[in-house]
Amino acid sequence: MKLVRYGNRGEERPGLIDNDGTLRDLSGEVSDIDGSVLAPHRLRALAALDSTALPKVDGTPRLGPCVGRVGKLICIGLNYSDHAAEAGMAVPPEPIIFMKATSAICGPNDDVELPAGAEKVDWEVELAFVIGTRAKNVPEADALSHVAGYCILNDVSERSWQAERQGQWTKGKSHDTFAPMGPWLVTADEVGDPHDLGMRLTVDGESRQNGSTRTLIFGIPHLISYLSGFMTLEPGDVVTTGTPPGVGLGMRPQVWLQDGQVMRLEIDKLGVQEQKCVRTKA
Amino acid sequence: MKLVRYGNRGEERPGLIDNDGTLRDLSGEVSDIDGSVLAPHRLRALAALDSTALPKVDGTPRLGPCVGRVGKLICIGLNYSDHAAEAGMAVPPEPIIFMKATSAICGPNDDVELPAGAEKVDWEVELAFVIGTRAKNVPEADALSHVAGYCILNDVSERSWQAERQGQWTKGKSHDTFAPMGPWLVTADEVGDPHDLGMRLTVDGESRQNGSTRTLIFGIPHLISYLSGFMTLEPGDVVTTGTPPGVGLGMRPQVWLQDGQVMRLEIDKLGVQEQKCVRTKA
Repeated sequence: MKLVRYGNRGEERPGLIDNDGTLRDLSGEVSDIDGSVLAPHRLRALAALDSTALPKVDGTPRLGPCVGRVGKLICIGLNYSDHAAEAGMAVPPEPIIFMKATSAICGPNDDVELPAGAEKVDWEVELAFVIGTRAKNVPEADALSHVAGYCILNDVSERSWQAERQGQWTKGKSHDTFAPMGPWLVTADEVGDPHDLGMRLTVDGESRQNGSTRTLIFGIPHLISYLSGFMTLEPGDVVTTGTPPGVGLGMRPQVWLQDGQVMRLEIDKLGVQEQKCVRTKA
Repeated sequence: MKLVRYGNRGEERPGLIDNDGTLRDLSGEVSDIDGSVLAPHRLRALAALDSTALPKVDGTPRLGPCVGRVGKLICIGLNYSDHAAEAGMAVPPEPIIFMKATSAICGPNDDVELPAGAEKVDWEVELAFVIGTRAKNVPEADALSHVAGYCILNDVSERSWQAERQGQWTKGKSHDTFAPMGPWLVTADEVGDPHDLGMRLTVDGESRQNGSTRTLIFGIPHLISYLSGFMTLEPGDVVTTGTPPGVGLGMRPQVWLQDGQVMRLEIDKLGVQEQKCVRTKA
């Protein structure tokens, strides 16, 4: 099942993409696609609906982030060995955790802001998973049962703010629009093995990242188990699992996003995102 | 005005402490104390109520965190020069930003978990401020107008997880119960100058921290202006401003919280918190 949120920013309505690719409205069934509807029994109830009986949505409305009211946006750093190498960092012996501000989350095709003073904005195509049921101290064997589904997340990063402006990475990861999410939340049953998904990113049509979740250092069961020992994962929390090689930081010379450029991100089974970069005054 | 949330965890109701120190219920006026009621006109409407006409709350119910549905819990690191020194760190030339998981937030007098494997849990009394109106790229001169009020926050920290387990500080800052918040949200008008508040923390009655917000390196207008250039601050977001000297990390030998110990935190005008430390299995 492909769940979406569509409509103007802050006014998104829940929907699904049916087997024909048609957007259908779910407002009669649920108030939003958020942590309150991601438990297995709620998802089963949605999957049991006759989608052809749901209202078709006319036109091509904006898509919002595929999950609303995200409680935590947790990121895993350096989780592909080739990316660690290109970033000039060692492969970590255990997962690196950091957070992006949830206010950075935007729709999959919204413009990405390049604010004044942000001269080193970079792309990162990532597989994200969304928590369906509360997870605290869960063993790896049970971990995947806590996942509601998967989506693409672009972990947009300002490298100077991340690494040259004191301390923690949060500063370079959290600007508004630095976390396009979607186009849809694909439920776990439809994705199958999350560790065998090709992932690609282009900038203005030129290939920049071309990898696969096969080469993740720490797989998703380990990440869930590990994270859940440090903090409780709650329904609607999002964990993004790191990026494969090919970011601008790793190019020689280094390359940064410019006003007007277009990023296109794709992960097998999870659809496509496309964002235009727009220089803003502040 | 002193705003509170009272009742069982996850079922808190809004209230206020009247001039006589009596807890009064606000459920008839607002659904919660959260970002939706922290704008100046909403707070003025609450302040204009005849508090003696509000229902008295019997007994001494548990107090929850004084703000609900916190979107971001942003922390400032090393914001007192003496604390930087005791931590063996340089005074930062600009603010250090990190995040705690919002799932770490608990009531001001709830037990603090010492989970299995957490052997270096430490205390940090801090002044936190709560955002009332959206702030993006705001100048310092306007910054304080975005503050709804202030409260105490205990930035409980596991030092080994923070510094010895790879990467970012988030890991050591985010366990459940690592962010007791309250007892009440004191509105900005009642606090006056936030840069002249004495702050004290004891463990089992022994003084550990005894400082003042007078010695903050980066004051609150600067923090708001600075932060708002990296990320948008939204109503209900909480920013905690750093801790003065006296943490266990800085003691020789170093001292960590033990099962059964009691932390007591106090900041002028903001009340008192008291938490018992409880060793948990995981």
